[in-house]
Amino acid sequence: MASPNVLTPQAQDFPRWYQDVVAKAEMADNGPVRGTMVIRPYGYAIWERIQSGIDERIKEAGAQNAYFPLFIPESYFSREAQHIEGFSPELAVVTYAGGEELAEPVVVRPTSETVIGEFMAKWIQSYRDLPLLLNQWANVVRWELRPRLFLRSSEFLWQEGHTAHASSEDASQYVKMIHANVYNDFLVKVLAIPTYLGIKPPSERFAGAINSMTAEGMMRDGKALQLATSHELGQNFARAFDIYFQNEEGQAALCHTTSWGSSTRIVGGLIMAHGDDKGLVLPPNLAPTQAVVIAVRDEAEVNEACKRAARDLKASGVRVVVDRARGSFGRRVTDWEIKGVPLRVEVGPRDLAQGVVTVVRRDNGQKSSPTLEALGAHATAQLAAMQQEMFEGALKFRDDATHDVSSVAEAMEAAQDGFARLAWDLVGSDGEAQLKTDAITVRCLQRADGSMPTSDTEENLVCIVAKSY
Amino acid sequence: MASPNVLTPQAQDFPRWYQDVVAKAEMADNGPVRGTMVIRPYGYAIWERIQSGIDERIKEAGAQNAYFPLFIPESYFSREAQHIEGFSPELAVVTYAGGEELAEPVVVRPTSETVIGEFMAKWIQSYRDLPLLLNQWANVVRWELRPRLFLRSSEFLWQEGHTAHASSEDASQYVKMIHANVYNDFLVKVLAIPTYLGIKPPSERFAGAINSMTAEGMMRDGKALQLATSHELGQNFARAFDIYFQNEEGQAALCHTTSWGSSTRIVGGLIMAHGDDKGLVLPPNLAPTQAVVIAVRDEAEVNEACKRAARDLKASGVRVVVDRARGSFGRRVTDWEIKGVPLRVEVGPRDLAQGVVTVVRRDNGQKSSPTLEALGAHATAQLAAMQQEMFEGALKFRDDATHDVSSVAEAMEAAQDGFARLAWDLVGSDGEAQLKTDAITVRCLQRADGSMPTSDTEENLVCIVAKSY
Repeated sequence: MASPNVLTPQAQDFPRWYQDVVAKAEMADNGPVRGTMVIRPYGYAIWERIQSGIDERIKEAGAQNAYFPLFIPESYFSREAQHIEGFSPELAVVTYAGGEELAEPVVVRPTSETVIGEFMAKWIQSYRDLPLLLNQWANVVRWELRPRLFLRSSEFLWQEGHTAHASSEDASQYVKMIHANVYNDFLVKVLAIPTYLGIKPPSERFAGAINSMTAEGMMRDGKALQLATSHELGQNFARAFDIYFQNEEGQAALCHTTSWGSSTRIVGGLIMAHGDDKGLVLPPNLAPTQAVVIAVRDEAEVNEACKRAARDLKASGVRVVVDRARGSFGRRVTDWEIKGVPLRVEVGPRDLAQGVVTVVRRDNGQKSSPTLEALGAHATAQLAAMQQEMFEGALKFRDDATHDVSSVAEAMEAAQDGFARLAWDLVGSDGEAQLKTDAITVRCLQRADGSMPTSDTEENLVCIVAKSY
Repeated sequence: MASPNVLTPQAQDFPRWYQDVVAKAEMADNGPVRGTMVIRPYGYAIWERIQSGIDERIKEAGAQNAYFPLFIPESYFSREAQHIEGFSPELAVVTYAGGEELAEPVVVRPTSETVIGEFMAKWIQSYRDLPLLLNQWANVVRWELRPRLFLRSSEFLWQEGHTAHASSEDASQYVKMIHANVYNDFLVKVLAIPTYLGIKPPSERFAGAINSMTAEGMMRDGKALQLATSHELGQNFARAFDIYFQNEEGQAALCHTTSWGSSTRIVGGLIMAHGDDKGLVLPPNLAPTQAVVIAVRDEAEVNEACKRAARDLKASGVRVVVDRARGSFGRRVTDWEIKGVPLRVEVGPRDLAQGVVTVVRRDNGQKSSPTLEALGAHATAQLAAMQQEMFEGALKFRDDATHDVSSVAEAMEAAQDGFARLAWDLVGSDGEAQLKTDAITVRCLQRADGSMPTSDTEENLVCIVAKSY
């Protein structure tokens, strides 16, 4: 079977490989305005699957979806002092609308803490209204001078959760639950991406937060990608936006708020965590198409068997398409490999004579020949095995490329093609400055056993250090 | 049962009633920037149901979702001459981003024909790539000086379909199918809103279209609301954006394109097509919550029966919530009535002693007393009957308020509290000008039998004339 390698190999030029996959799998294009992107149907189908997996978990966590405006008055950004510092150069500003110059310019939202804070203040009266658990699916804009499709774009799609609570304990507990049950659960079980969970060092915290949690994944080039973040905002935004409630004693008290987000960046993470030199490799639980049925030859009997195979797969709960295209079989195989579809079901006259079809797994190329009768059950089992083995493979890859070191200098060496782990005490702000000279950052702080610390002042923390996207 | 009327009655002041419902049912608030809106969780849950009903139908029609950028270069708008004329004063423009003034200002999309045209030109090579069937769910901005929540807001949410075809016949047939099988099917079967389908007169066509189809609904005050529109764009955008394909003879040919959209306006239409003086009335097929179970008294046995009722309803496929709030029973009933939940299941000690519960229909107040055992089947039947009767009621209301007339003067009288229907020949551009002096417009042109004409030059057309939102 001809399989011309149309992609730049990962080992030769990883960023180029990424660009090639995004283009050749027809996932996205650059938009006409610098830094914007066009998400093509295949890329968007992947995003829809990510969206529904996360949305389902958010609803299970008791939060409700709502929608807040794209445009925010410029003055809102100066209310929480650190917040404007964190965003100012990234903002896009509308100065002209409705045929005239605006009296007050409006900012295209880079995130919605400020406007949601304004409405929380309006909606919350008493402790009975708490917790208030909101989520929004929306586009946001942060002007990017060095854009990369999915990873860093001036406009991106995301969800942002925003909650208000009566106590810091309740806020803290809720946002930790979101980080574990929404983000980590989805990343591990659906995307098959192992994560390092931890908190950001103070230098990397979200603008206005008192604590930022992250989930960091390792890409195939050994760099880190932040896949989701969850923030405790303390009373900073509540104070700036007067989010008070009447407590059970009848006194006015300030709320404690949180925010948490994940975005189309995850699509980039999915590509780079699992992709190989033939293209995307999609974990079955995520794949919009889990199996493609291809006729080896355009013959009546073969086409009939393809239809039957698709019907049986669908009945077994497999998301399946039949490739009806003409043209070279080898070329079609290559196209489906680039798209990362987990199973390829090849139907040809020679196999049919034996009553079987050929099933090829995308991740390891392994072939099997189930009978047509057994295809549904066989495919389901293969998909489950592939999901499991993809996670295990990614975990081994990550663990092998994570090195325990005992100095900043060693960490800098290890971070050339992997992660380094070392005592946080050995780094500090001097160490962070040193790491930055080679574009290396502290990705997160963890306890020695890998669990999530409560604060960066806990003793005996370790840090994960890496180059990143 | 106390049921204080907290809304302005429709007959007293319909626009005020609308505002009251939107506020008291907690559907939406005005945003801080003029004309923008905050869609609250209950309003957004209704929008999510609308979205999924329309999205499902779009996918069945073979179109694929994609996402195009929010920002469009200003120059794109001048390429299709009529298009810029149609939108210019409504545009919001970003002039400042990334800390500096932009060399070319960018427009916040009012619709995406231009940018999608650009990419269609890139993606379409040959007749094999046609038809190209795309859809996008997105926010768009059209600056509004007289905003009204859901009906007319500076930013709104919508879907916009964009397709390219090899022939005008194929384009025309596809967009007519979308209008019938996506929009009308959804409006009638899910929203229970009867529609007048027809084409817009030339004066009301979309900027750049050669034919615009509309679905017009009648609101409870006798005014019209345009619920969805579908446009044949001919070769206007294809010419402006060079959307060529190589035909089967190997020659370059211009594509024929279409676009079609529906938006959060539909939420406004849903409120005004079915609402009454007690608030929203939601058709069961649409309602995010189809039944609410309320304990008449806070007693252990009653609470236990509420849980069981909810479990049984859920098992029967009913979307149900249990009202666990304390406070006045009458006040809670009023709140659920404002929210338009189709069925209220009241569980009280007296009924329980007989082994029954009380079920109240929101649309007509009709009560029934099924046994707890029969509740699931009973509720399912009630919901089906309510869906059917709501449509029939709305149809009768509309037909009773549609008057056949034989002059523009008579049409103007009839349009004070309903629709007028008359021969299109009797109107023409002079008649349209006369109607406009009283804010009355031609909503659509139909054949005499109510079917969809192909063009406004067909003979013997009638027109539907009304005041509108």
